[in-house]
Amino acid sequence: MIKKYILGEPIDTESVVQNIEVSPGIPKEIAEVSECTFCIEMPEDARVYGLGETVRGINKRGWRYISNCTDDPIHTESKNSLYAAHNFILIWNKKKTVGYYIDTPEKTEFDIGYTDPDRLFIRLNSPNAYIYEITPDLTDNKSKACESDNPLTKVVRQFRYLIGQSYIPPLFAFGYGQSRWGYKSREDIYSVIKEYEEADIPLDSVYLDIDYMDSFKDFTINEDAYPDFEDFVESIRKKNIHLIPIIDAGVKIEDGYDVYEEGIKGDHFCKKEDGTNFVAAVWPGRVHFPDFFKPATREWFGEKYSFLLDKGIDGFWNDMNEPAIFYSEDGLREAFEKIRSFEGQNLDINSFFEFAGAVEAVKNSPKDYESFYHEYKGKKIRHDKLHNLYGYMMTRAAGEAFEKLCPDKRILMFSRASYIGMHRYGGVWTGDNQSWWSHLLLNIRQLPGLNMCGFLYSGADTGGFGADCTEDLLLRWLAVSIFTPLFRNHSAMGTRQQELYRFPHKDWMRGIIRLRYSLIPYLYSEFMRAALYDDMFIKPLSFVYMDDERACDTEDQLFVGESIMIAPVYTQNVSGRTVYLPEPMKMLRFEGDILTEEIEMPAGDHYIPVSLKEVVIFLRHGHVLPLVKPANTTAELDQSDVTYICNNASEDSYVMAFP
Amino acid sequence: MIKKYILGEPIDTESVVQNIEVSPGIPKEIAEVSECTFCIEMPEDARVYGLGETVRGINKRGWRYISNCTDDPIHTESKNSLYAAHNFILIWNKKKTVGYYIDTPEKTEFDIGYTDPDRLFIRLNSPNAYIYEITPDLTDNKSKACESDNPLTKVVRQFRYLIGQSYIPPLFAFGYGQSRWGYKSREDIYSVIKEYEEADIPLDSVYLDIDYMDSFKDFTINEDAYPDFEDFVESIRKKNIHLIPIIDAGVKIEDGYDVYEEGIKGDHFCKKEDGTNFVAAVWPGRVHFPDFFKPATREWFGEKYSFLLDKGIDGFWNDMNEPAIFYSEDGLREAFEKIRSFEGQNLDINSFFEFAGAVEAVKNSPKDYESFYHEYKGKKIRHDKLHNLYGYMMTRAAGEAFEKLCPDKRILMFSRASYIGMHRYGGVWTGDNQSWWSHLLLNIRQLPGLNMCGFLYSGADTGGFGADCTEDLLLRWLAVSIFTPLFRNHSAMGTRQQELYRFPHKDWMRGIIRLRYSLIPYLYSEFMRAALYDDMFIKPLSFVYMDDERACDTEDQLFVGESIMIAPVYTQNVSGRTVYLPEPMKMLRFEGDILTEEIEMPAGDHYIPVSLKEVVIFLRHGHVLPLVKPANTTAELDQSDVTYICNNASEDSYVMAFP
Repeated sequence: MIKKYILGEPIDTESVVQNIEVSPGIPKEIAEVSECTFCIEMPEDARVYGLGETVRGINKRGWRYISNCTDDPIHTESKNSLYAAHNFILIWNKKKTVGYYIDTPEKTEFDIGYTDPDRLFIRLNSPNAYIYEITPDLTDNKSKACESDNPLTKVVRQFRYLIGQSYIPPLFAFGYGQSRWGYKSREDIYSVIKEYEEADIPLDSVYLDIDYMDSFKDFTINEDAYPDFEDFVESIRKKNIHLIPIIDAGVKIEDGYDVYEEGIKGDHFCKKEDGTNFVAAVWPGRVHFPDFFKPATREWFGEKYSFLLDKGIDGFWNDMNEPAIFYSEDGLREAFEKIRSFEGQNLDINSFFEFAGAVEAVKNSPKDYESFYHEYKGKKIRHDKLHNLYGYMMTRAAGEAFEKLCPDKRILMFSRASYIGMHRYGGVWTGDNQSWWSHLLLNIRQLPGLNMCGFLYSGADTGGFGADCTEDLLLRWLAVSIFTPLFRNHSAMGTRQQELYRFPHKDWMRGIIRLRYSLIPYLYSEFMRAALYDDMFIKPLSFVYMDDERACDTEDQLFVGESIMIAPVYTQNVSGRTVYLPEPMKMLRFEGDILTEEIEMPAGDHYIPVSLKEVVIFLRHGHVLPLVKPANTTAELDQSDVTYICNNASEDSYVMAFP
Repeated sequence: MIKKYILGEPIDTESVVQNIEVSPGIPKEIAEVSECTFCIEMPEDARVYGLGETVRGINKRGWRYISNCTDDPIHTESKNSLYAAHNFILIWNKKKTVGYYIDTPEKTEFDIGYTDPDRLFIRLNSPNAYIYEITPDLTDNKSKACESDNPLTKVVRQFRYLIGQSYIPPLFAFGYGQSRWGYKSREDIYSVIKEYEEADIPLDSVYLDIDYMDSFKDFTINEDAYPDFEDFVESIRKKNIHLIPIIDAGVKIEDGYDVYEEGIKGDHFCKKEDGTNFVAAVWPGRVHFPDFFKPATREWFGEKYSFLLDKGIDGFWNDMNEPAIFYSEDGLREAFEKIRSFEGQNLDINSFFEFAGAVEAVKNSPKDYESFYHEYKGKKIRHDKLHNLYGYMMTRAAGEAFEKLCPDKRILMFSRASYIGMHRYGGVWTGDNQSWWSHLLLNIRQLPGLNMCGFLYSGADTGGFGADCTEDLLLRWLAVSIFTPLFRNHSAMGTRQQELYRFPHKDWMRGIIRLRYSLIPYLYSEFMRAALYDDMFIKPLSFVYMDDERACDTEDQLFVGESIMIAPVYTQNVSGRTVYLPEPMKMLRFEGDILTEEIEMPAGDHYIPVSLKEVVIFLRHGHVLPLVKPANTTAELDQSDVTYICNNASEDSYVMAFP
């Protein structure tokens, strides 16, 4: 059951697709502490879930999360904000399960037992929000009861019914993709593909980061580095490999650049208070930001994707759309002035940190976010009042255009910044993570929250974007990412190159990737089922064994679809790990794509050796895992030749959602 | 057995105290790859230990560590250098155990399976080093065989014999200490003590961070904030509480400031190439660095501690002695010039990051470390050739002075930067960590390496220095730190205040601190035993159960002394953890200092519930744990009234090393 409450005069985010009758006041379990602060008591046994893409564990108790889309590549535990704003929380305790969706595009704080271990505070930026209270009674009209229905999954399904069906990507988006910020030319891309071919490692896509563009200008090609782009795309498509270019939010200010000139002419850019176009800087230097809140601007910008679609491109990633601001013209001027004032002084602790801070402060400055405006539903609204919607609206521009430009084709689309609602137009990757073992664990822990919020198509930069990856970390990370819908190896310029073929044990890597391809029919089928029935594709143990405290504490094992549980190794220099089985399961051990052991195990703790070349999967009682022969691309997968691994279930009890 | 090899013309670091005959060439298992690069093959089963204070796990395989003392407060997994340089590694495999000590004060890289999973590369900065090869045959004259003697502990004991006996602190240094960068006045300190008294939580020391000084000048007192300092110290000592002031490496340049003027007059400061005093900046702004490599300078600076000793102070922490450099006079000038060149430009990706980097680059710049000189053993030597010894020499200055100034008294001393050899003069804390759960785990994992290298008196900033601490993190951290010799709660200005009395469940905290005081006789006795017999006070499981692969993989359990194993909880929102017992042990469960459960457990995996107010200890078979009644200070501990908890051993089998 969904109840809707209105606080003040909120902005309609268009994240919700159902008309819900408005109830008066606010939910009775939420106490208004002050104009913008609300408090929910948390019993000792309460667990809090949700918030999508955030730091820390699956149970969100014990930290202060701030929904404020931020370009910050250092995702340590003490960060409050990442790239996304997913304001859905779910509170469970033995007596009650309830979800809240705090629908406001402004900065929103969830203090979940940080200030007071037993209280959850919600702090709004202004006293305006839609609040949805969601309880487990199903009111949607989707007939199939999901297998693991319980109060938690029911609240999630209600919420997902409220916000609409999740984006479904094309099949090739489940293939393995290679990416790196630093591929400089057509030759670099050819070389990557050739090396994958020579290593006989499956590959479905290669990503084009910012260097494919001419001077980082959206919808342009660097013709020197990528001559005959259309032929280039075609030559690679012949190998069944897709090129996936990046699109950034900022449009370079440059006379003669068509997108810039059209934007000026069509009045598509965000304005300062005085009506002039706001100038920020990102990769190309000075840019304007398209005002994606205007339908006409979305239409214009969305249509621009056809520049690449027409060249054979069928997938994109939208980046820098928090929006990231390296500096604004005004902010940089002020910084220079400030810096000048320190020259020639004896800088002590205070003045030195002020000096150093003056430069740091130009990046993603709150002041800048308060200095430009959007036109939304006929009103001029300051950016910070809409901030968390910007990435959503950019990706919506693309999604709306794809529906028009290629209605019969699924286009791959995922974004860095997101707000709930964007899940209907694309997926997300979890941004600029690092080659840290702790980020492999973070990756595991972010997936359930993203799934709750509708972002089924998601994944992390496998191997880590920043910092230097090691072979063992990459192997262990592959063994996790083969279960995530988005499966991309991506790394940053200046870090160790981490294409799989560069490491001594590329045969081990090949084996793991091949297993992914064997799993694709299962993964895609389970993904479709989750998308169509508003279910989660990836679930934490606590959503299946709610009353088993051990299971609920276990935040390093996940259900992937309805048949299997994974228990990844995310620690260096270990030969295995302890796995908790809440019920008897069948352990399947794979060396690469070869099943080497299949053994029923009783409930309880088990130490499971897992070498670097192995993947271990746990098949639930009464369930089936379909596997096909691997291929080197999804296009070549033979989905008709299925092997079924069963645990007290018959082969035909598994029905492919979309065989 | 210890063999000594000489490579090139190394600098004598005075870290070694034994005369070892020189063998020709280099150890036969070390291959010279190039002039400065050496390679050791690592069999698949090889584990590598040592390196003291570093990031990551106990087994050092899988990363590239660079000994280069660095003031960097963000200790993520991808950092190569922390504050210390501890060039001792220990390689174990089923066939052989060998240790190497690479004795050079220059930057030294240990690439342990990073570039190649099966090779260990040692890269020197110049082809000059003493190399000690240590094998398990004991040649020292210490009669007592340590209980858990095996090839690993024997190599460690040989190494420790080589480098001399570890620093032993006074008993009060085992008490609990409260610290914060941000105590501004005498009143702040009184208030902290009063709150601890009112909360009835034991407390032995309060730390004075940089604000007790007049303008951050070493050996001065801010008289406005701390009037009548001597009376103040005395009034607190009456409560059996010790004040522990910080001492920084840099001496403020200020006419009329006695330390500065004496330094100039005595020619005690580091010089630039042209013979003028090198100007760097740290807390006070512009400073000179004392040239601690000169015996006369050490004597002069060491004697300065009497300024505080005479006021009743009996403990210090030496900080900023990597040395940290916020900027140098020359470096800052260049940065301003560079910044000016960017003004008015359209800064694109490259130029913007150059601009932003220009400021970042002034901190701890390699160029600065190459621009000043020391006088060492009669030679003028550029700083980078001696870099890793600077903190050691500073602390040695203090240690040598204490021996002279107060030969009959133990003075508490620990340092941030360190090199092997410094362990004879003081302990270390692990620097500016963060309030991260992952740093609680890092804390656990750093202790064995520090112990191997002789830094028995060590500990982390409990609760985390940077970032905001939560109650649950602090409780779990206390439950670890009650086992570390140095036990200090310390946090940074601007972070959440984390004195224990500020949290709702201070009664739980009180209980855990009281357990520490009950344990002190055991801890001090085991510490003394380790110090006197060159043993480790804290050991990893792999040093006790070498041939048990599970035990060796287990890097989140530790032996503390010879009787007990700890298995701390370092994960948020869990009700317990899985513990691996390599052999049967007795589990002791404490709620605060009250023993609530005592149960023998068989070898194997056990899930152990541990609530936030509990501490669980595992008592080894055939061992005894002595406990006393807690008191509110170490001075009030009655060490005669001992309760013995036994696991198949008799009470009198436990002999206090120093009852």
